This record gives sequence, structure tokens and C-alpha cells, in this order.
Amino acid sequence: MSQYRARVFVTLKPSILDPQGRTVERALSHLDHGNVSGVRVGKYIELTLDGERAAVEAQLRDITQNVLSNPVMEDARWELEEAAAQTDLEPA
Amino acid sequence: MSQYRARVFVTLKPSILDPQGRTVERALSHLDHGNVSGVRVGKYIELTLDGERAAVEAQLRDITQNVLSNPVMEDARWELEEAAAQTDLEPA
Repeated sequence: MSQYRARVFVTLKPSILDPQGRTVERALSHLDHGNVSGVRVGKYIELTLDGERAAVEAQLRDITQNVLSNPVMEDARWELEEAAAQTDLEPA
Repeated sequence: MSQYRARVFVTLKPSILDPQGRTVERALSHLDHGNVSGVRVGKYIELTLDGERAAVEAQLRDITQNVLSNPVMEDARWELEEAAAQTDLEPA
């Protein structure tokens, strides 16, 4: 059984107004960062899953769609990578 | 002058308690996802910057450290890529 580290990105759908992003954009503009636009604030979630890759992928898809995001208003995508194995590499 | 799309990831430092992550973890455990651990909830911010690459990188470093994150409690990292150019490619 392996251990996987997942990263989930949740963003508001492009058609949904993002007041938090607008506020950040206005603040940046007042701080002499007038060349910044299109600020969108989303969520970034890291989690660790134990199991076989195929099962973990299916589980992560389910969690991302049904727990971590609201598919009506949000887009979600995820990345999965095997966590570094705990091997005992002896120095030569 | 080019346009760049930046993605900023802000996470609580590992030593800082993450109650939101703990709550998600507990909810998942009640939903038969007991193999999930180490849930950390952070922020994911997308923004567009106009300018030359070197200047934009310096600006983004400043924005990430001083506006989008609190360096006392949070780690922040960012990615930058040139936005797709608006070229008029004629079909052959």
C-alpha cells in the first residue's frame, strides 16, 4: 500500500463574481500595482491518502467534487503524487 | 510588453495548527474516508500582470510576501507563465 499526497485547487467559475478578488485587486492598485488585473481568490487543499493508486484517484475525484467544492459555483482540479518512500539509503 | 498569469499558493506553516483542515479531515473520516490524513487548507490566488518578465517577477515576489501572505504564519510560493499571445493564426 502506498501513500499519496494530493493538491486540490478550487476556484470560482469564471462567470461568478469574486468580491474577495476584487478587493485584493483594488488594494494592489492603491499600492502602486496598477498593472495587476484578473485577481481570483480560491482554495488550495493538501491531503494525504493511503491506498492503491487507482482507488485513491477515484476517491480523490469523489472528495474533490462532493466535499471540497461546490460544483454549481466552483471549478476544482487536483494533482496526485506518490509521497517519498521511506527507504533506508545507506551512504556509500 | 507581455502579459503574465501568476498562481500563488499560500499555506499555513507546518508548525501552525490548522483548525479548518482538522475539520475537513474529521468530516471525511465520518464519510468513510478514514484513509485521509494531513489535510491543510490554504489559499490559491490567480492574477494577471502586465510588464517585462524580470520586473513582473520582482513585483510578484513583493506582492506574495507583503500583501497575499503573512510571513509570520504562512508559507507562500508562486508560479508565473506568459499568457497566451493574441496571435492571428490563419488556418492553412
